[in-house]
Amino acid sequence: MFEHTHQLRVRYAETDQMAYVYYGNYAQYCEVGRVEAMRSLGLSYAKMEAEWGVMMPVMKMEMEFKRPAFYDELLTIVTTIPELPDREIIFETSTYNEKNKLVNQAKVTLCFVKIDTKKRVSIPEQLHEKMKEYYV
Amino acid sequence: MFEHTHQLRVRYAETDQMAYVYYGNYAQYCEVGRVEAMRSLGLSYAKMEAEWGVMMPVMKMEMEFKRPAFYDELLTIVTTIPELPDREIIFETSTYNEKNKLVNQAKVTLCFVKIDTKKRVSIPEQLHEKMKEYYV
Amino acid sequence: MFEHTHQLRVRYAETDQMAYVYYGNYAQYCEVGRVEAMRSLGLSYAKMEAEWGVMMPVMKMEMEFKRPAFYDELLTIVTTIPELPDREIIFETSTYNEKNKLVNQAKVTLCFVKIDTKKRVSIPEQLHEKMKEYYV
Amino acid sequence: MFEHTHQLRVRYAETDQMAYVYYGNYAQYCEVGRVEAMRSLGLSYAKMEAEWGVMMPVMKMEMEFKRPAFYDELLTIVTTIPELPDREIIFETSTYNEKNKLVNQAKVTLCFVKIDTKKRVSIPEQLHEKMKEYYV
Repeated sequence: MFEHTHQLRVRYAETDQMAYVYYGNYAQYCEVGRVEAMRSLGLSYAKMEAEWGVMMPVMKMEMEFKRPAFYDELLTIVTTIPELPDREIIFETSTYNEKNKLVNQAKVTLCFVKIDTKKRVSIPEQLHEKMKEYYV
Repeated sequence: MFEHTHQLRVRYAETDQMAYVYYGNYAQYCEVGRVEAMRSLGLSYAKMEAEWGVMMPVMKMEMEFKRPAFYDELLTIVTTIPELPDREIIFETSTYNEKNKLVNQAKVTLCFVKIDTKKRVSIPEQLHEKMKEYYV
Repeated sequence: MFEHTHQLRVRYAETDQMAYVYYGNYAQYCEVGRVEAMRSLGLSYAKMEAEWGVMMPVMKMEMEFKRPAFYDELLTIVTTIPELPDREIIFETSTYNEKNKLVNQAKVTLCFVKIDTKKRVSIPEQLHEKMKEYYV
Repeated sequence: MFEHTHQLRVRYAETDQMAYVYYGNYAQYCEVGRVEAMRSLGLSYAKMEAEWGVMMPVMKMEMEFKRPAFYDELLTIVTTIPELPDREIIFETSTYNEKNKLVNQAKVTLCFVKIDTKKRVSIPEQLHEKMKEYYV
């Protein structure tokens, strides 16, 4: 199964007055994890939009907040794609703090939409090809 | 069952280059819905923190993105509390666009934490009292 | 001179661990002030983009943070356009807290750009017409 | 004069429907630049708050938006402190895109506030010591 690890540091802007990372900001962390996971496969989400004319809106998000993350922590974001994607793609993201404790566990489902027609399509062929080798 | 309706307008800052409301921003819309729902019960979340010393971190969030919301749309946010809360409180939030079409459906679970000890506690008595009458 | 007043409530998401509104979020408050100011003139920024094909990127921003704003405060945003706009438009925004104390003073300069050509243009005629009567 | 360079990648969340980085988000980029500049001096802003009990609210921000930054661009953030700080500290931040073109130029002035008393103080001695050697 495909798995990718990325690190990012919590910004002051991302904290709230509880001194926790605001719960809505984990969606951004997951986005960064997904994009870097795709980049590690040689795929640029930016190019997917610009060159293939396909965008990937989010259809579903599930998240559990296991413990707070704090300002300036260097978080480790582990992104997996649990199954070979087809009409939709699922990313699972586990975020760990510096003590390697689980902070957030997320599952985000996206689909593929042609930018010009705004119609749903299947996974672009090039992306499917890249992914296939991980799911023999 | 307790239900509350609030409206807010999509900010330019909240859109992304798809011209959709960025998926992570719905967490803020749900927050606004929850806070205004509590205010309508005569309860101020700000005072709960400042006077009762209790904060409400999010434990779990589930969201379905039914259709995109766009810049400048006046969204209608319907917040319900499906059951009388005790150790945790669940808010369900349905967000509708100006054509009354469902945009986003969310379920957010929060718990109660004493600010000084950082320990979980049950729902504050005053909040429980206010809520009880809705769940006979 | 044209002046418009709008109110908005500070979201939890907008605070940081100082318990202040994060300084970058005032840019959003100013945006809301500008858009509502234009709406009060019968002008929709959304329509300006969609129908006239003109967008308004920010060129310059100056801001003084006079005192902190806090969670749940109902802020009053006073937006003025100090002079009749031509190649660019300047909005001045003063944000006040519930005690009517000045929180933030901002001056934001925007220009007009044709969306299709990405070239700078002068103020759209319809907008100029609306504004003219305020600057005799 | 002290100067520090840091890189960060534009998130999808940070774009708006113009497909530009939303103007308010540069405040976050400047924050990251400042914090990493301080870290390069062996100073942690997080520790300054936690151990020295001093926080640094922003008093003033001036920004020019020279050209748009786009999704997924790797931006280079150059942070300088033009003069030895005392009662306040000024950070100048220049943000460049991948073609090394200037995107944003900012000047942010912060002060020092004791967290417990909320009173303004001079620059903490340890920070002043670190900085002094750069301004002989």
